[in-house]
Amino acid sequence: MPTIRTLGILGTGLIGTSIGLAVRQRRVANLVIGVDTDPTAAEAARSRGALDRGGTSYEGLKDADLVVVAVPPANVVDAVLQVAEMVRPGTVLTDVAGVKAPIVRALEGRLPPLVRYVGGHPMAGSERQGPQAADPVLLAGRPFIVTPTRASDADAVDMVSALARGMGMHPVVLDADAHDALVAEISHLPYLLAVGAVNAASDEALPLAGPAFAGLRRLAASPPELWTQICTANREAIRAALSRLRAELDRFDGALGSESAMGDLLARAQRRARDR
Amino acid sequence: MPTIRTLGILGTGLIGTSIGLAVRQRRVANLVIGVDTDPTAAEAARSRGALDRGGTSYEGLKDADLVVVAVPPANVVDAVLQVAEMVRPGTVLTDVAGVKAPIVRALEGRLPPLVRYVGGHPMAGSERQGPQAADPVLLAGRPFIVTPTRASDADAVDMVSALARGMGMHPVVLDADAHDALVAEISHLPYLLAVGAVNAASDEALPLAGPAFAGLRRLAASPPELWTQICTANREAIRAALSRLRAELDRFDGALGSESAMGDLLARAQRRARDR
Repeated sequence: MPTIRTLGILGTGLIGTSIGLAVRQRRVANLVIGVDTDPTAAEAARSRGALDRGGTSYEGLKDADLVVVAVPPANVVDAVLQVAEMVRPGTVLTDVAGVKAPIVRALEGRLPPLVRYVGGHPMAGSERQGPQAADPVLLAGRPFIVTPTRASDADAVDMVSALARGMGMHPVVLDADAHDALVAEISHLPYLLAVGAVNAASDEALPLAGPAFAGLRRLAASPPELWTQICTANREAIRAALSRLRAELDRFDGALGSESAMGDLLARAQRRARDR
Repeated sequence: MPTIRTLGILGTGLIGTSIGLAVRQRRVANLVIGVDTDPTAAEAARSRGALDRGGTSYEGLKDADLVVVAVPPANVVDAVLQVAEMVRPGTVLTDVAGVKAPIVRALEGRLPPLVRYVGGHPMAGSERQGPQAADPVLLAGRPFIVTPTRASDADAVDMVSALARGMGMHPVVLDADAHDALVAEISHLPYLLAVGAVNAASDEALPLAGPAFAGLRRLAASPPELWTQICTANREAIRAALSRLRAELDRFDGALGSESAMGDLLARAQRRARDR
């Protein structure tokens, strides 16, 4: 198992700070250094106990064995390239963005030869944002998808997997495109359905909505800036998932006239929903 | 405020038993009598404390001032007509089915002259079923929609509203068609979206699904028999809601290519989701 002596975290928002808390509580690394261009965020993460040292300069990351780039998805490629200029040869870089293929593709061939990048996606989140909402409980028991590039070596994949395991997550190695298709189905589509249902509901209906609608409402309240980046970055996979969903909705139109056809569709969903 | 001396409950499943528990705990009526054609269900409701007396014969309901018919939606019309033959003149009947217009229409002109029917829908539920899953907490704080027919008198509406208030629910008087359009948007459509998303997801994706998908999964695990009755009974309103939802999904197709268009749609949903 590769040892992580110094873990660097760039971006001490919800996920970066949650990772820092998990790593320090579980002693996954000897030292955790956090950097955020917003000094308030870096200080909030430090004072919550997520970091041994916090600061605003990328310089702080120069001695890390592994750097987790936990900035908003649209900034990941630039941030990885900047961190790569800063760190020692052999350092492993990963990120936490929810869409992987565009990032992996943009980085291919552009990193210094001895810096090793492996895509990462801890499948965890909250409708809240920022270091104050961070919680290692968000991570525990969840999958951490690892998406190697053609240039990623096995040791680098192992180090990111060890970080995931150390935080109580389950590392799953996937091709970046397979990852993006998968999250379109189980994360991006549910969010967009929630947005669609909330936007389609009438002003009279919303105040009467109950527990069935509450889950959709909570999803639809997620930060639009972050989700705009995620959805536009993954638009091809989302369009494919939307098109499969439309085919399911079309089935309802027909089945609504027939108890047996409707019963079959609903029973299939119950079976699949209960199956783990 | 009209007094309820004896409350009758026909059907001691999830909702009937929850109503019995709420009424006895809050002393909304002096006596609660429950009838279920399944003796196990009647006995389970009684032993949980939801009933003063339980049995299997409609005869048991003959002295009630108010009878709540809490049987599956497809059986409501027949059950109301049978109970109406049994009770004293002046008795008020209501039901708890989630679709109101077909029931209100089917009963119009078919009840004995001195029996007064008012449609009811306590907007509460669970993906579980039966008396063992009953809980008055499901009802507290939720709306109880009251849908009078043209024949319902004001006293009968008041008695059903008093029952709702006594259980800690908020009575809302609505036309049956308006009710059905509203629940299509906030209850039936969310359920069908959950069914669609679960049925559209690939076998590989489902095991990795997290909190965002968990709400959909829980909804999709709801009892298919009950939901088949609800959805086919409310098919016209559901088709209208599905068509508005499709228009929202079509908007995504266009907006996925534009950060500003996407941002506007998502920000609108966040505002509406947070608005109460």
